[in-house]
Amino acid sequence: MSSNLSFVLNKVHDVSFEEREVPKITSEHDVLVAVNYTGICGSDVHYYDHGAIGHFVVKDPMVLGHESAGTIVEVGSAVKTLVKGDRVALEPGYPCRRCADCLAGNYNLCHEMVFAATPPYHGTLTGFWAAPADFCYKLPENVSLQEGALIEPLAVAVHITRQAAVTPGASVVVMGAGPVGLLCAAVSRAFGATKVVSVDIVQSKLDMARDLASTHTYLSQRLPAEENAAALKAQCGLGKGADVVIDASGAEPSIQTSLHTVRMGGTYVQGGMGKADINFPIMALCLKEVTAKGSFRYGPGDYKLAIDLVANGSVNVKKLISEVVSFQEAEDAFKKVKQGQVIKVLIKGPNEQ
Amino acid sequence: MSSNLSFVLNKVHDVSFEEREVPKITSEHDVLVAVNYTGICGSDVHYYDHGAIGHFVVKDPMVLGHESAGTIVEVGSAVKTLVKGDRVALEPGYPCRRCADCLAGNYNLCHEMVFAATPPYHGTLTGFWAAPADFCYKLPENVSLQEGALIEPLAVAVHITRQAAVTPGASVVVMGAGPVGLLCAAVSRAFGATKVVSVDIVQSKLDMARDLASTHTYLSQRLPAEENAAALKAQCGLGKGADVVIDASGAEPSIQTSLHTVRMGGTYVQGGMGKADINFPIMALCLKEVTAKGSFRYGPGDYKLAIDLVANGSVNVKKLISEVVSFQEAEDAFKKVKQGQVIKVLIKGPNEQ
Amino acid sequence: MSSNLSFVLNKVHDVSFEEREVPKITSEHDVLVAVNYTGICGSDVHYYDHGAIGHFVVKDPMVLGHESAGTIVEVGSAVKTLVKGDRVALEPGYPCRRCADCLAGNYNLCHEMVFAATPPYHGTLTGFWAAPADFCYKLPENVSLQEGALIEPLAVAVHITRQAAVTPGASVVVMGAGPVGLLCAAVSRAFGATKVVSVDIVQSKLDMARDLASTHTYLSQRLPAEENAAALKAQCGLGKGADVVIDASGAEPSIQTSLHTVRMGGTYVQGGMGKADINFPIMALCLKEVTAKGSFRYGPGDYKLAIDLVANGSVNVKKLISEVVSFQEAEDAFKKVKQGQVIKVLIKGPNEQ
Amino acid sequence: MSSNLSFVLNKVHDVSFEEREVPKITSEHDVLVAVNYTGICGSDVHYYDHGAIGHFVVKDPMVLGHESAGTIVEVGSAVKTLVKGDRVALEPGYPCRRCADCLAGNYNLCHEMVFAATPPYHGTLTGFWAAPADFCYKLPENVSLQEGALIEPLAVAVHITRQAAVTPGASVVVMGAGPVGLLCAAVSRAFGATKVVSVDIVQSKLDMARDLASTHTYLSQRLPAEENAAALKAQCGLGKGADVVIDASGAEPSIQTSLHTVRMGGTYVQGGMGKADINFPIMALCLKEVTAKGSFRYGPGDYKLAIDLVANGSVNVKKLISEVVSFQEAEDAFKKVKQGQVIKVLIKGPNEQ
Repeated sequence: MSSNLSFVLNKVHDVSFEEREVPKITSEHDVLVAVNYTGICGSDVHYYDHGAIGHFVVKDPMVLGHESAGTIVEVGSAVKTLVKGDRVALEPGYPCRRCADCLAGNYNLCHEMVFAATPPYHGTLTGFWAAPADFCYKLPENVSLQEGALIEPLAVAVHITRQAAVTPGASVVVMGAGPVGLLCAAVSRAFGATKVVSVDIVQSKLDMARDLASTHTYLSQRLPAEENAAALKAQCGLGKGADVVIDASGAEPSIQTSLHTVRMGGTYVQGGMGKADINFPIMALCLKEVTAKGSFRYGPGDYKLAIDLVANGSVNVKKLISEVVSFQEAEDAFKKVKQGQVIKVLIKGPNEQ
Repeated sequence: MSSNLSFVLNKVHDVSFEEREVPKITSEHDVLVAVNYTGICGSDVHYYDHGAIGHFVVKDPMVLGHESAGTIVEVGSAVKTLVKGDRVALEPGYPCRRCADCLAGNYNLCHEMVFAATPPYHGTLTGFWAAPADFCYKLPENVSLQEGALIEPLAVAVHITRQAAVTPGASVVVMGAGPVGLLCAAVSRAFGATKVVSVDIVQSKLDMARDLASTHTYLSQRLPAEENAAALKAQCGLGKGADVVIDASGAEPSIQTSLHTVRMGGTYVQGGMGKADINFPIMALCLKEVTAKGSFRYGPGDYKLAIDLVANGSVNVKKLISEVVSFQEAEDAFKKVKQGQVIKVLIKGPNEQ
Repeated sequence: MSSNLSFVLNKVHDVSFEEREVPKITSEHDVLVAVNYTGICGSDVHYYDHGAIGHFVVKDPMVLGHESAGTIVEVGSAVKTLVKGDRVALEPGYPCRRCADCLAGNYNLCHEMVFAATPPYHGTLTGFWAAPADFCYKLPENVSLQEGALIEPLAVAVHITRQAAVTPGASVVVMGAGPVGLLCAAVSRAFGATKVVSVDIVQSKLDMARDLASTHTYLSQRLPAEENAAALKAQCGLGKGADVVIDASGAEPSIQTSLHTVRMGGTYVQGGMGKADINFPIMALCLKEVTAKGSFRYGPGDYKLAIDLVANGSVNVKKLISEVVSFQEAEDAFKKVKQGQVIKVLIKGPNEQ
Repeated sequence: MSSNLSFVLNKVHDVSFEEREVPKITSEHDVLVAVNYTGICGSDVHYYDHGAIGHFVVKDPMVLGHESAGTIVEVGSAVKTLVKGDRVALEPGYPCRRCADCLAGNYNLCHEMVFAATPPYHGTLTGFWAAPADFCYKLPENVSLQEGALIEPLAVAVHITRQAAVTPGASVVVMGAGPVGLLCAAVSRAFGATKVVSVDIVQSKLDMARDLASTHTYLSQRLPAEENAAALKAQCGLGKGADVVIDASGAEPSIQTSLHTVRMGGTYVQGGMGKADINFPIMALCLKEVTAKGSFRYGPGDYKLAIDLVANGSVNVKKLISEVVSFQEAEDAFKKVKQGQVIKVLIKGPNEQ
C-alpha cells in the first residue's frame, strides 16, 4: 500500500506533513478508502487560523480536512453495497447509532458524533480513510471524483434548504454568496423555487451566484436592517416579503436583515456561523409568526440527494472549483482560501497524480 | 334596547364613559351580542399607559377591551349556528377572508385584520357588539359567561402551545407565570406533556402555576443566561434540555435562557412581547438546530379547542379570576392590573347586574 | 355587451345552445369575465353521457364546462387586484368562507361549495361569467389564454402532487397517462422528482408522457397486480418500490398495482375516480405503513403555482392541446373526447373569433 | 445461573418445553435479561394455530413470545444506561441500524429486522434474553414488571395513535375493543381527544372500553357499511364524521365502516391485520381527501412514551390483565386466549416464583 502522508495542524499556523500508519478496518461493516480529492472548508481555515471553533479546541496535533472523495480499496466482510474500486463521496461524521436522536433519524444531533477534523478527531487530508460503508456514497459514472469532493458542502446546502422547507413556487433569499450560500441558491432552484435572490456585499460573488443559479441579486447596503430589507424587497419584487430567507453568512447585519425580509408566516434558516450572540429583531419573529430554524451539518438522505442533484445536472458544482493543487501545496491553498481569492480549492490526495 | 355605555381611551391616562349608538348588523352573516363580561389584557393596560404598542398608535378616542363573552340578542338572516339567547365567547379579530393568508388557513396573519381595541378599531368594553356569527363560539351549558371571558387568553395559550407542537410525553418549560404563561402551562399539560416547568422571578406566581398545572417550578436567578439555564435544567431534571421552551414573558434574560434551556432539535416559541430587538444567542439556535417560532394571536380551531378544554375540565380558568367589578369601576380595575396585584380582573358589561 | 350564448345539457345526450341573460356582479368583491377558452374535462363528458356522477345528478338543464380562461370586463368596487382587460384563469368553485374547513384553509372540502357544472350549478361554457376576484388569477404576459384554460387540470395535478408530498430526489410512478396523469408526471418533475414513471395500457399515451415529462414508461400488463408491480419495479429500476405512486386512472387493477408498487413507508395518492368500491390490498397498506391520500379538486395556492409552472417553463401545457374548436362545435368536441381520439380540446367562447 | 426453559412451537398445535442454552452477550452494547413476565399476543396464538402469518412461515421449531419484561443480570462493557438489577421492558425487534430506513428514523420498516417469535427468530418465552441495551427500557419505580409486560401492546397502540396524529380536541373512533383497540382508545384520551368512541360486536368488550377510557361506545350492527356508519355518527354525535378512525379489528366490515365514518379531510389508520385483500370504498377515500395510513409495530420513542403513560397514570394497563399463570401453564394460556375468554394473560418466566 502507498503513502499515508497526512496534513497535520499542530497549533495555530503550525502545520506539518507526517507519514502516519494506514488505518485498519475494525468492523465488518467498514471500508478502507484511498482519498483522491479534498476540498478546503471555512472551518478548516478557522482551525488553522485560530486553533478553535467555539467549544472545540485543538489541543493535540490534528489532521485537517473533511470534504473528500476517494476510491474503495478494501471492504469489510459484511459490506454488500460497495466493492473495491468504487468511487465514493465520504460523509465524514459517524454517529453512535444508539441514542434517542440517532434512532429517531436525527443523527446529526448525536452527542457522541465522531466528526473528521473536529477535535479531538483527525480529518481526511491523508492517504487512507476507514469508514462505515453506509457513510460512503457511491458516485454514479457521470459524477467525477472532483465533483465528489464537493458533495460535502452541497449536502450542507441540501440540509439547510430542507430545513427551510423550500417548496415549488417559493421565493427564496440567500444571504451570503460564499460556497454554501451559492449552493443553497442552486439547491433552492432545484427544489422548484421560482425566485431566488442572492445577497452579498461583494459584486463578483453576486455575479457568480447569477451565473450558477440565482434569478436575482442584491448588493447589500450599509443601512439599518429594516431599511436594507425594504430596499431588497422593493428591488427584487418580493412584495410583503420572501417565503424563505436563508442566512449563509453568519454576519449580524445579514441576520437582522433576514428577519425583516421574510414574509408573515415565512421561514428563516440560520445556516452560517459567526458570533455566538447578536442583536436580534425578536419582535419581528414574534409578530410575523416566523419559523426560524438552525441547520447543523447534514442528516439522513442529504448526501444521496446531493449526489442526485449533481448527477441529473440540477446543480453544477464544477463551477465552484477555482483550483486543484497537489497535496504538498496544502498550506498555500489554505492561505489562498483565507485571503478570499478563491471559491473552492481541491487538494489532491498524497497518492493522486 | 338597553345602555350601550362604552369605556373610551381618549389619550394616555385619560378615559371616559360614553353612551354610544348601539351597533347594527350590516351583513346577513352577523349577530348582535350583549356583552356580559370582559377581561383586562396587558395590551389594554399598555394602551392606557402608553397610548401605543409598536406601530399601533391611538390617535382618536378608542373603546378598550377585547376579552369578552356575551349573549346573542339578534341574528342575521343567514345565520344557522346561533339563536337569540345563546351565550358566546367572542373572537375579537375579523380577517378579510380573501387574501392568500386567509384562504390558506392563516387568518391571524391577514394584513387587513380588524381587531378589537387595536387602533383604529374600537373594543368590546361596551354594551353591544356586532360580529360575524362564525367568530362567536357558543358556550356549552357547563361553561359560565365568566369563564367565557377567559377563552380569549386561553386561545392565545392554545395557539402558542400548538405552535410549540407540544406532544404527549414532552418536557415543556414556560418562561413567565402571568396569565398567558399560566395558561400555556395548563394547555401543555392538557396536550399530554409529562413535565411542565414554570419559571418566574416572583415566587407567588410560581405557587399559582403549581396550583394550576405545572409539575415543577424554577425561581429564575440573576445569573448569565447559560448558567441560569444550567441551574434550571439541573434542578428540574431536564438532562440535556427541554423538548419545548415557551417564552411568555417577553423579557430579554428569559429569552436568552430559553435558547440555552431547549434541547438539541427542540422547539422554542416566542409568545410574549417586549423589546423589539434584544441580545440573542443565535449560535445556540444554529448548532442545536432549534426550531424557533413566533406566535401571534390565534387562528383556526383555537377558540373551539379552548372552550373544549374548559368544558371537559382540562383547564380550570376560574382560578385565574382575581376579581369581578362593575363597568363603572373599569378604570380602577386597569390600575390594579397595572400594579400587578391581580391575575385577571373581569369587568361586567354595562347592562350586567 | 355581446352574446351570452351558453351550451346547455338538458338531459343525457340532449344539449342545446341558449342565449341566456348576462350575469351581474352582485358583490363589490366580484368581477365579470368574458370567457375566451374552455377545455373539456372527463367529468363534463360523463354528465353528457350519464347525466350524473355519483350523488350529483343533473335534474334541471345545466350549462356545462369549468376549465376556462377569460378577460375581465367589469370589476366590483372593492376589487384591488384586477382591472378591466386583465386576462385570467378561472378557478371555478366558490366555497362559503365561513365553515371550519374554509377557515382552516381546506376550502376544497367545504360542504357548501358552489362548483361550476356540478349540479345544480351552471358551468362556464357561456359568454360571461361572474366570480369573486380572488378566484380569478391574472395570467402573466408570457402565458396565453389557451394555456390559461389548461390551468384548471394543471391545478388538479398540482393538488395531487402536493398531496403526494413529492420531494426532490423522489421516485414517482403515475398510473394513467390521460390529461391529469400526464400533468402529474410533469408536475412531479417540476417538484424535483428524479425518476418519473408513467404507466398506461396504451403505448401512444406513454409516448406522449415521455415527450412531456416522464423519465420512464411502463406498458401495464394483464397480470395479477402483485406480478404486474414486480415487473414494473424491475423494468424501471425501482428496487424495493417507488417513493410515491399516484393513481390518475381510477381503474381497479391500477389501484391494486399502486399498492404493490409503493415502497415501505411510501405514499400513494388516489387522484382519479372510477368505481365506488373495489378489491383493495389492505394488508399491503398496513404492513408497509403506506400513507394513502385522496385528492379532491384543488385548494389554496394550487392555481397560483400552476400558473407559475407554466410561466417559468416547467410544464408545457400547450403539448396537451389537440384541437381548438368554435363554440358552435361544442357537441362534436364532446364526442371526440368521449371517443378518446384527443387529449384536450379547447372550445372558444361564443364571442371569440 | 438458573433455568433457561423455553416454550417451543414445533409445528401447528405441537409445543414443547426445552431447556436451551443460556444466551451470551456478543456485543459490548448488549445486556442479558432474566425474563419475568410475558404476555400472549394474537400473533403468537396465530402461529400456534396456523404455523404462519402471511409470508412468515414456521419451518423450524421456534420459541414463542415477544411481550416481555425482565431484570438485567449482565451488562456489556459499553453499556452506560443500565445496571444489574434494573427492571426493563423489552422491545423485541432489532433493526440493522445501517439501512436508509434505519438512518432516517423508521427502523420498524427495516428489511433486516430481527423480531422475536417471527420466523426464523426465537421469542422471549424463555429464561434469559440477550438484547442491545438501547432496546431495553428501564421501568420507573412505580411501574411493576407485570405492567412492564404490557408495554409492548401499549407501544403498538402508541404507534397507531401517533400515525393517526390524534391531537387535543379530536374525535376518535376505534374499531375493535380487543387489547390493542382498548389501548388505542386509552392512548387517544391521553393524547387529548375529547371524544373517544369504541366500536365492537361484543357488548362486554364495550363495557371494558368504557371502564378503561372511552367516552362513548357503539355496538356495531349487521348493516351495509354506509348505514352502519350513519347510525354510529348519529348515535355518538359525530356530525359530519370523526376526525380520526382507527381500525384495530382487521375485519372487512369494520374497515368499510371506518371509511364512511371519518370526516372530510380526516385520518383513518389501519392497525389490525386480517385478510390481505378486501372490498374497500376507494371513492370515499378520494372524495373526502382522507389520509389513510398503515401502522406496523413501533418505532423511535414509542416504548418510552408507553412507559411514561403508565408511570403518570394516563393509561391503566393493569385492568387488561385477566390472569397470571406459571410458565408450565403456557399452552393452557394460549388456548384460553384463542377462545377469547380473556383479554390479556401473562406467563411468568421459568425462574419466576
